[in-house]
Amino acid sequence: MESLKNKILAEGQAIGTEIIKVDSFLNHQIDARFMYEIGEEFKKRFHDKKVDKILTIEASGIAIAVCAAKFFDHPPVIFAKKATPNTMDDAYYSYIAKSFTKNTTSHVNIAKKFLSQGDQVLIIDDVVAYGEAALALCDLVNQAGAHVVGVGAVIEKEFQGGGARLREKGYTLESLAVIEKIQDNKIIFKD
Amino acid sequence: MESLKNKILAEGQAIGTEIIKVDSFLNHQIDARFMYEIGEEFKKRFHDKKVDKILTIEASGIAIAVCAAKFFDHPPVIFAKKATPNTMDDAYYSYIAKSFTKNTTSHVNIAKKFLSQGDQVLIIDDVVAYGEAALALCDLVNQAGAHVVGVGAVIEKEFQGGGARLREKGYTLESLAVIEKIQDNKIIFKD
Repeated sequence: MESLKNKILAEGQAIGTEIIKVDSFLNHQIDARFMYEIGEEFKKRFHDKKVDKILTIEASGIAIAVCAAKFFDHPPVIFAKKATPNTMDDAYYSYIAKSFTKNTTSHVNIAKKFLSQGDQVLIIDDVVAYGEAALALCDLVNQAGAHVVGVGAVIEKEFQGGGARLREKGYTLESLAVIEKIQDNKIIFKD
Repeated sequence: MESLKNKILAEGQAIGTEIIKVDSFLNHQIDARFMYEIGEEFKKRFHDKKVDKILTIEASGIAIAVCAAKFFDHPPVIFAKKATPNTMDDAYYSYIAKSFTKNTTSHVNIAKKFLSQGDQVLIIDDVVAYGEAALALCDLVNQAGAHVVGVGAVIEKEFQGGGARLREKGYTLESLAVIEKIQDNKIIFKD
């Protein structure tokens, strides 16, 4: 998505060789108009899929998922919650996710009542780095006996391997901008 | 807003006399189509205001704020972050909020670069109970030398006093549904 690559180049900030800050339009301040363009692009990428529900994770995925919902005729949007173990009970599907960047683990939960067997679920993520958030969401969908129709990521940091992990497991991943590497504070896109 | 009251009666769940669960459409699963109706209603309520930015707090406010942005010609949406103190530095405006429900304190932060002196800011909140989140956001706006044009809440739980606290401080609060009390597991609206 050319407009996204241009936006990342104009506003994104490379830090070291691992981190790219996109908080001016994606995950602190949100460019709402641009979010709708992103939502529309996800519809193009998944136009041939039946989507019963859109699933994401708090907090940065929510804006993207809600804007995407507009182009999929407003299916329910569910955001998984990052919660401490004591809030969990058997009313929740739960997954323990490892954060490679922070070297911590956290619980990702969805109330069982919001995912049903057979649901066709599109997963939306802001940034796929090591892929733990997306893999957590896929696992929760599987726990429910529902089906992942695909994973839509705004940004994929290819060099951190999350995209490869998702594809190896058989998931269809559509990333709107794929970053091959960060070199000398420059963001290098794939292709 | 009649459709909202009906939705709360149909889907909301009263727990004891203090808590109302609206996770089927507002803060876990999101009814995206209905969120746009809510966004449009906020535009009606604040149609005479100049809105440079929409400010909310993660996670539940994000969907509402992004949907509202559509009807305000897409100003930037900023969501304040609940973060631990060690992530703060002088690049952030910060406020220590007390949670009356959980009896904890937490830091609410916004990167200074996203709020400028003179900005006309509309604050969006999902539920105003004791009002701490909304008051935190107002304080951050004031720290920046910006101006709160109003606070839009989807639900106000009048009996917990947050609305009164905001109005006493001179803020314009527009609540789309005002709950007077919860009695015998029934939700009683004002009027």
